[in-house]
Amino acid sequence: MDQVFLSDTELYYTTPDKIAKQDVVIVGEEVKHISQVMRNSIGDEIFITDGTGKIFRTSIKHISKGECIAGIIQIFEYSDPLKDFVVCIPRLKNNDKLELALEKCVELGITNILVFQSSRCIGRGSKSERWNKISIGAIKQSLRSFLPTIEFLDKFENFNNLSGIKIIFDQSGDILFKDYLSSNSNDNINADNKKKYLIFGPEGGLSEDEINLIKNKKVLKLNNNRLRSETAVINAASILSHYFTEVQ
Amino acid sequence: MDQVFLSDTELYYTTPDKIAKQDVVIVGEEVKHISQVMRNSIGDEIFITDGTGKIFRTSIKHISKGECIAGIIQIFEYSDPLKDFVVCIPRLKNNDKLELALEKCVELGITNILVFQSSRCIGRGSKSERWNKISIGAIKQSLRSFLPTIEFLDKFENFNNLSGIKIIFDQSGDILFKDYLSSNSNDNINADNKKKYLIFGPEGGLSEDEINLIKNKKVLKLNNNRLRSETAVINAASILSHYFTEVQ
Repeated sequence: MDQVFLSDTELYYTTPDKIAKQDVVIVGEEVKHISQVMRNSIGDEIFITDGTGKIFRTSIKHISKGECIAGIIQIFEYSDPLKDFVVCIPRLKNNDKLELALEKCVELGITNILVFQSSRCIGRGSKSERWNKISIGAIKQSLRSFLPTIEFLDKFENFNNLSGIKIIFDQSGDILFKDYLSSNSNDNINADNKKKYLIFGPEGGLSEDEINLIKNKKVLKLNNNRLRSETAVINAASILSHYFTEVQ
Repeated sequence: MDQVFLSDTELYYTTPDKIAKQDVVIVGEEVKHISQVMRNSIGDEIFITDGTGKIFRTSIKHISKGECIAGIIQIFEYSDPLKDFVVCIPRLKNNDKLELALEKCVELGITNILVFQSSRCIGRGSKSERWNKISIGAIKQSLRSFLPTIEFLDKFENFNNLSGIKIIFDQSGDILFKDYLSSNSNDNINADNKKKYLIFGPEGGLSEDEINLIKNKKVLKLNNNRLRSETAVINAASILSHYFTEVQ
């Protein structure tokens, strides 16, 4: 983020349909935060993102209980260096751990999340509304302009319907993620315009059958230590963020 | 870890004074886990670490309510590639977040932890017993043989009494951690036999005065996103683990 965003900057979120040519409209809970918590009023500058790679520097024109209209002063546009990566998080039994993995991924800049069920997943079902809310909180916290997509895959075999490279992290992998990242093979993680699905096992791991089922895959070892599912996810997100970060 | 340690391996911990020439003794809670939870009995093979870089493959010779004696079959010895790094975690107000950062550091292979207080830390005081317990759980989980040292620094200025490089992560840093890691300057992070203290700000950051106070420092930017304290710690631990990991 540009140096214009300081450590105490507040970033607000609104959906893309609320962006007009000159104004941005915010409705709902977020307005309460602006007026009652942050005590902003007419004339104050606030930053707003629509979650599609833009941050608007605006000045409040009108604010009432349920609506804030802010005039656009400046637009910052970003590209997403991690757009081809999809972090695939198993549907963990423990919601806190799943939400932790999700939140940290978003803070670290992951923009595509897929939550999946596999045979050893004890947790079941999508909680897309809750997950989206966590993502919004995390982009505001981390001053990010991309609201991640969060998909849900209820049948593990449907990974084969998704085109792209499937990278499965498993302790049985004999290539380290580190070495894979620095290798120059054609189908590697640096290949442009090709989706890369990073798949992590649930508490009991993926079964051998599940690993065998997946086509167009690489089985890699993330770390020599045996990591908990959520630690593995955050670890890989950290590494991706690190590799693809440039000074801004 | 060697391939002898499988994903369902249980690793037990005992203090170094319980290691004799041929036998390892385990006492307390851990014995209950061996006999009652895992239902191991005489003749069963179990793995035990003393937290100093060794893992013992053993066979149970004797087991009673409060004591287990196991004969040593094989000893695995490890070196610690992160021995010169000290991860300095601010005394966060939220114990869960502090403990999360600690647990993930240990899983990722960090072996020196320092919890410190600074002016904007709202949390106060050491909980060394609790933190040590979390560390033991994390080395068992991640099949690690090094139990981290956990120190507590109640006065921020005492960082100047510690010899070594102080790396302060702050959004004001104009060098990215990534570029620092790959640079070849003499005092950089790759320098052998020199302690490197990685210092993270608490919720409100370190104050400018505090940053200025520290001698022999580098101020680096960890990530372009504004990260929560615990995310920053886990992110840096992930990167260190990644850089210094070799296939085993």
